[in-house]
Amino acid sequence: MLKVIILGIGNVGFNLATEILNTASAQLIQVYNRSLKPLEYFKEKIAITNDLTKLKQADIYIICTSDKAIEKISNNLPKTNAVIVHTSGSTNINTLDKHKNYGVFYPLQTFSKHQKVNFKQIPICIEANSNKTLSTLKRLAESISDKIYNINSQQRFEVHKAAVFVNNFVNHLYYIGEQICENNDIDAEILHPLIQETVKKVETMSAYDAQTGPARRGDSKTIENHLSDLAANHKEIYKLLSQSIAKTYGKKL
Amino acid sequence: MLKVIILGIGNVGFNLATEILNTASAQLIQVYNRSLKPLEYFKEKIAITNDLTKLKQADIYIICTSDKAIEKISNNLPKTNAVIVHTSGSTNINTLDKHKNYGVFYPLQTFSKHQKVNFKQIPICIEANSNKTLSTLKRLAESISDKIYNINSQQRFEVHKAAVFVNNFVNHLYYIGEQICENNDIDAEILHPLIQETVKKVETMSAYDAQTGPARRGDSKTIENHLSDLAANHKEIYKLLSQSIAKTYGKKL
Repeated sequence: MLKVIILGIGNVGFNLATEILNTASAQLIQVYNRSLKPLEYFKEKIAITNDLTKLKQADIYIICTSDKAIEKISNNLPKTNAVIVHTSGSTNINTLDKHKNYGVFYPLQTFSKHQKVNFKQIPICIEANSNKTLSTLKRLAESISDKIYNINSQQRFEVHKAAVFVNNFVNHLYYIGEQICENNDIDAEILHPLIQETVKKVETMSAYDAQTGPARRGDSKTIENHLSDLAANHKEIYKLLSQSIAKTYGKKL
Repeated sequence: MLKVIILGIGNVGFNLATEILNTASAQLIQVYNRSLKPLEYFKEKIAITNDLTKLKQADIYIICTSDKAIEKISNNLPKTNAVIVHTSGSTNINTLDKHKNYGVFYPLQTFSKHQKVNFKQIPICIEANSNKTLSTLKRLAESISDKIYNINSQQRFEVHKAAVFVNNFVNHLYYIGEQICENNDIDAEILHPLIQETVKKVETMSAYDAQTGPARRGDSKTIENHLSDLAANHKEIYKLLSQSIAKTYGKKL
């Protein structure tokens, strides 16, 4: 059974650690974090440490720190034949190339500590410096997820960019929608069924085909009405996205 | 039991008509459309017509045409004590004020003919020119949905704007995400679990609290990396939304 150590207990590290703790086909043997506080949850269950020189021997070391700390942690790891991976969407695999066996183990999901996710559905993007290392990562990935993707660093960088659009930017549009409702004494929950249906649609058809609304129809009058009383900071976003939609469908606004 | 006639069999009209057909507490007695083709589905079930002078007597006439046709249809309806409503998010109730009893019956949802929606979950925004008319509309709304909102024309206009952000614009961001994946030989399905989780989050917390990503963190390095090889038309959107997020959280990029 693969022995795993996780380094860095932020949102990704916490979720990955609790998931591996609960799987029968891999064994989490230790968690590391710079400060002790985030390790408390684990201290009755497995070994914890905030000292890189006290790491145990494992098959896979998973670096789950912020992007900028990855290289430093990697450089401070002991010399080993074990596999060293990071979990970053936008960090090249080569950042770990001082090690013999290294790779990337990138779960494409947004994590928070207080919301449990279903790991079986989370795409795990793996990349490795050799076929042998790749198959080790595949074994670990398969123990927690049904969706494994072989993705190289350039593709991962692109996926991460796409994720910013469909997660970070989408959430910001939800925020703007909530603001508009609240500023007009309307419970923002009124938007939830529409938000859910929008997602359901792209599961069964392409987003290109699912597009509706004034910009898609080239309905300049409605767009002008909306723009006339939008807050300045929302107006630019409304304009730019409407223009982009209109252009996509060959409409003029 | 309320007798209903629907005028205009586009996406909204079609969905509303089939829903009222299936409910026991209201009766759809006729559908009108300018052309006969969209009426075919109904011809074995109820009366159909493409002639406004051949409309039957009903309690409620629901105008489901495009926004710009509402006034014309309204003006061509016979003089009646029945309730005349439209279903438009961005059309003022006063557009119908040549009638004695009038109002708005606005289902806040994105409709298509080939995807069935659960009406019970759809917010129905109602508005009327009198309390009596409002209670008639409430009876009809309650026969198909569990979520009834009393919303005036100004609020409805705002809700419609919010809907453009959380539906039309969000779908366009899904489109951009799909494009980025497809241009890099990655199955766009890889984004679906992330898209679903993003929605799940705003059901349990505010979008303000749910926000993550480089702009939220003020992580200029990742943002610059992403911008460096984005297509020109996506670059402006990335920049503007990142700036808006950063500003929301008091970060500088």
